Amino acid sequence: MQRQCWTGIDPSLGLWTTGKSRSGKENTLSTTTDARLSGRMFVGAERVAGDGPEVRSVDPRTGQALDPAYHHGGAGDVDRACALAEEAFEPYRATDPERRARFLERIAGNIDAITAELVERAGLESGLPEARLTGEVGRTTGQLRLFAGVLREGSWQGVRVDTALPDRTPLPRPDIRQRMVPLGPVAVFGASNFPLAFSVAGGDTASALAAGCPVVVKAHNAHLGTSELVAGAIADAVAAEGLPQGVFSLLVGDGPGLGQTLVADPRIQAVGFTGSRGGGLALVEVAARRPRPIPVYAEMSSINPVVLLPGALAARGRELGAAFVGSLTLGAGQFCTNPGLVVAVEGEGLDAFTAAAADAVGADAGATMLTPGIARSYQSATEEVGGHSGVTELARGAAAEAAAAGHALLLAVDGATFTADPALQTEMFGAASLIIRCRDFDEVLRVLRSLEGQLTATVHAEPGADDAEATRLLPVLERTAGRILFNGWPTGVEVCHAMVHGGPFPATSDARATSVGSRAIERFLRPVAYQNVPDAVRPHVLRDGNPQGVWRRVDGELTRD
Amino acid sequence: MQRQCWTGIDPSLGLWTTGKSRSGKENTLSTTTDARLSGRMFVGAERVAGDGPEVRSVDPRTGQALDPAYHHGGAGDVDRACALAEEAFEPYRATDPERRARFLERIAGNIDAITAELVERAGLESGLPEARLTGEVGRTTGQLRLFAGVLREGSWQGVRVDTALPDRTPLPRPDIRQRMVPLGPVAVFGASNFPLAFSVAGGDTASALAAGCPVVVKAHNAHLGTSELVAGAIADAVAAEGLPQGVFSLLVGDGPGLGQTLVADPRIQAVGFTGSRGGGLALVEVAARRPRPIPVYAEMSSINPVVLLPGALAARGRELGAAFVGSLTLGAGQFCTNPGLVVAVEGEGLDAFTAAAADAVGADAGATMLTPGIARSYQSATEEVGGHSGVTELARGAAAEAAAAGHALLLAVDGATFTADPALQTEMFGAASLIIRCRDFDEVLRVLRSLEGQLTATVHAEPGADDAEATRLLPVLERTAGRILFNGWPTGVEVCHAMVHGGPFPATSDARATSVGSRAIERFLRPVAYQNVPDAVRPHVLRDGNPQGVWRRVDGELTRD
Repeated sequence: MQRQCWTGIDPSLGLWTTGKSRSGKENTLSTTTDARLSGRMFVGAERVAGDGPEVRSVDPRTGQALDPAYHHGGAGDVDRACALAEEAFEPYRATDPERRARFLERIAGNIDAITAELVERAGLESGLPEARLTGEVGRTTGQLRLFAGVLREGSWQGVRVDTALPDRTPLPRPDIRQRMVPLGPVAVFGASNFPLAFSVAGGDTASALAAGCPVVVKAHNAHLGTSELVAGAIADAVAAEGLPQGVFSLLVGDGPGLGQTLVADPRIQAVGFTGSRGGGLALVEVAARRPRPIPVYAEMSSINPVVLLPGALAARGRELGAAFVGSLTLGAGQFCTNPGLVVAVEGEGLDAFTAAAADAVGADAGATMLTPGIARSYQSATEEVGGHSGVTELARGAAAEAAAAGHALLLAVDGATFTADPALQTEMFGAASLIIRCRDFDEVLRVLRSLEGQLTATVHAEPGADDAEATRLLPVLERTAGRILFNGWPTGVEVCHAMVHGGPFPATSDARATSVGSRAIERFLRPVAYQNVPDAVRPHVLRDGNPQGVWRRVDGELTRD
Repeated sequence: MQRQCWTGIDPSLGLWTTGKSRSGKENTLSTTTDARLSGRMFVGAERVAGDGPEVRSVDPRTGQALDPAYHHGGAGDVDRACALAEEAFEPYRATDPERRARFLERIAGNIDAITAELVERAGLESGLPEARLTGEVGRTTGQLRLFAGVLREGSWQGVRVDTALPDRTPLPRPDIRQRMVPLGPVAVFGASNFPLAFSVAGGDTASALAAGCPVVVKAHNAHLGTSELVAGAIADAVAAEGLPQGVFSLLVGDGPGLGQTLVADPRIQAVGFTGSRGGGLALVEVAARRPRPIPVYAEMSSINPVVLLPGALAARGRELGAAFVGSLTLGAGQFCTNPGLVVAVEGEGLDAFTAAAADAVGADAGATMLTPGIARSYQSATEEVGGHSGVTELARGAAAEAAAAGHALLLAVDGATFTADPALQTEMFGAASLIIRCRDFDEVLRVLRSLEGQLTATVHAEPGADDAEATRLLPVLERTAGRILFNGWPTGVEVCHAMVHGGPFPATSDARATSVGSRAIERFLRPVAYQNVPDAVRPHVLRDGNPQGVWRRVDGELTRD
């Protein structure tokens, strides 16, 4: 393959010189919406053209393949990116938290500066509307700035100090201190449905970089141009902050090939992934089979039950039905937290909800889905669930006029049928939902207990009227989901300190973690204890006098003194 | 199998009536050192005789099988213990932290009350001396009381509150709160080398019970009587505190049979294990292959490098050699943190160290090992490493006069030979150590970088003289070990807040965790977020006004208000 040194060129210049790849393919500068796209990967600071199969993102509205062409990287590219990441690890993790905070802020600033290009290119590659993508840019830079704040606050270092007790009998107690250290280079897999906030500079990358881990991203093939633009913003920040080039690389390839090679590389120490169950489980297996296994944080599959309690249905059944379809069809239903299941006791309230929801679904004009492949998967999943003998189709919206056409769909089934067949829990990634009509509240509980792990569980309850049922629901939902929300819809995921975007298997591969919110940094850290280490040798944050002014647990008590 | 209701009988009565097992075996009350031993398991509150193969602990001094006979439990026993644990989970986790703290303290009190019997029986089953076992009883009750304190302090609940911002544009922010919830029933595997502190009521059980998880223990076959006595102390506390019986069960069986059946049971949600690499990896694989995988915290294998820096060797080489052998031979070398590797630059200082160490090893009288099987494994591991063409035997101590005879052994090899052959990293579980003579400090670093993950790494450094080398060592050791200690020996593991008894693979299967110290509770918890949940329905600790007075992260800031 042909490598070309990346020179940290001014983004406004918008031009890359190109070369010829080893395989003889001409890397022409294509006439695309953004002349800064080169079709190359970032292996550290180098711009590298892959010499594997050609891959292009596709406009899901037209089905047209987009310029420029990219090419899959190979094992040599993975090796080089991992070698650079390993080389960068020690100096990068040794940077003080303030320096990493400024680095994250600079990435955010660089992304802010190309918001217009990003929104345009991401719209072309995803079919998502401008307002949504503008919001997603803000979410992405907001996450980077959140972790800058986390770094400065300092609790992420988890400092603990147990002071020496030299006079203790029968044995003196040594001085023991603890802090969190980063795991090492992290592999991140971009998601199809958030070309910005869960991709190249998304939450996984932001939290891993904050932790002190270099990152090697595998771009999602659905938005290669967006990925390249964001990678440029990061590489620019790496260079401007004088950090080692291996802190960040961006590779192009497929999951079973380059992706699995990346996860198997001995220098990679953790994996962040958002995508399909099959893709996630394949990476989990590769990671477990390594001579030295590593943690995989894969967010995979969730159908996000919504429980409608009788009081809420009686008070506002129709209103809830309409609002529900608003959440269901948002972003063509392509959210990990899309409400794919509604559970309620049958009766007038549920009938009113169902009628309103069916009206709204029937009136829905459809939407462009992210890729033709996702549209095909949606088609087959809805046919599978909708074709089940116990399932009734209540309403179907119009299909969008697009190559990747999506339509809303509302199905219904009774509780006993649902609990009898786990296939009815199949995720229909898109704007489809299944209403489960239960005979009584005990059946509602049975349905919920039969569910696989979920990212979210939603309850609509009328204050006072539904408190008894809500209280019975809570422990069941706590075992099932990472987030429980009342009287709202699950599709908004706030980026904050208390958020949990995670949940029991198969919602994620590790229910102990969240991929959104400040706690996400903990995924890439592990504790180390230091016993009687002289103050001159101790890591700075552990030294006497608390030089970084962080919260510490001293002899079991939290203090900032 | 025959079940017999356990009646919470006064421990001082010391007698159990017996019945006949389904298989026709007479469950006679054996004349053993402790008449309270029945040879039965605890399936919840029931005393159950297994109907599988007979198994007895063995006095490692004499090789004599001990009364009473136990019998392996079967799949039915696992099923019943897990069903009871699952049934107990909801009511148990709903108990307030103060009640669980009292429960842990009552277990500790019950164990205190039978210290003499425990020390006697554990001595018979392990060959460990009385003073060590008396200390281990104290360590065990101390751990239980530590977690009572952790429960009362409250930070383990990880409370976070992000307050609602109803006027935020473009969208209001909901009220989001977070706490940690327990994973569910936990399987614990008793360790051979700590019949008390890492077994039935050891750190795994104490931290899981503190977290709100019922526990099903598989007793280690080396100390079945000790296990039964401790199980009685726990079951007594369960009954006295009015907790559901399924909070605790004790099963008997082998690892590949009953042990793997237990880990595969769908109701088990996490595993704590201390033992061999083979045993731990087998459980990790079973857990990963479940339809719903679960975390396994397996502490497996560590050779605990000790680095001797030139200044320290010059100042006190001989003294260090003698002290090193004290640590090496403690408890017949049967500690996970036993110093099995010494790394230093060759020269006069190392020669003095080596001479003193060889003298001390040569003068060692040997010690009884824990079991005849462990003695055989020690024999074969030392033959394998000692027989390596590049390895020299420096000294060999006398063998103990015992069925499970152990002897001290000191080997040496040069740095290049060591790094060329990973087989030289084989753990020799017992009082054997390998001195690695390096040509220079760079070779010391190469040796350390070549090591698998370790529980500990020790540095002997002369303040001032060795600071530069020590500072270069630190980042290398941080990647290798869970605990770094200076100018001491790794065999003491303090139970405190800052301790890390864990480390990168294969020291443990999950470097993000510690099995000793207050942080051990985190292994059995996961975060859940609560969005706009009404105050009347919210878990108590999350309610307005901070009713439990715990530290909370409110809008990112730690506060107890």
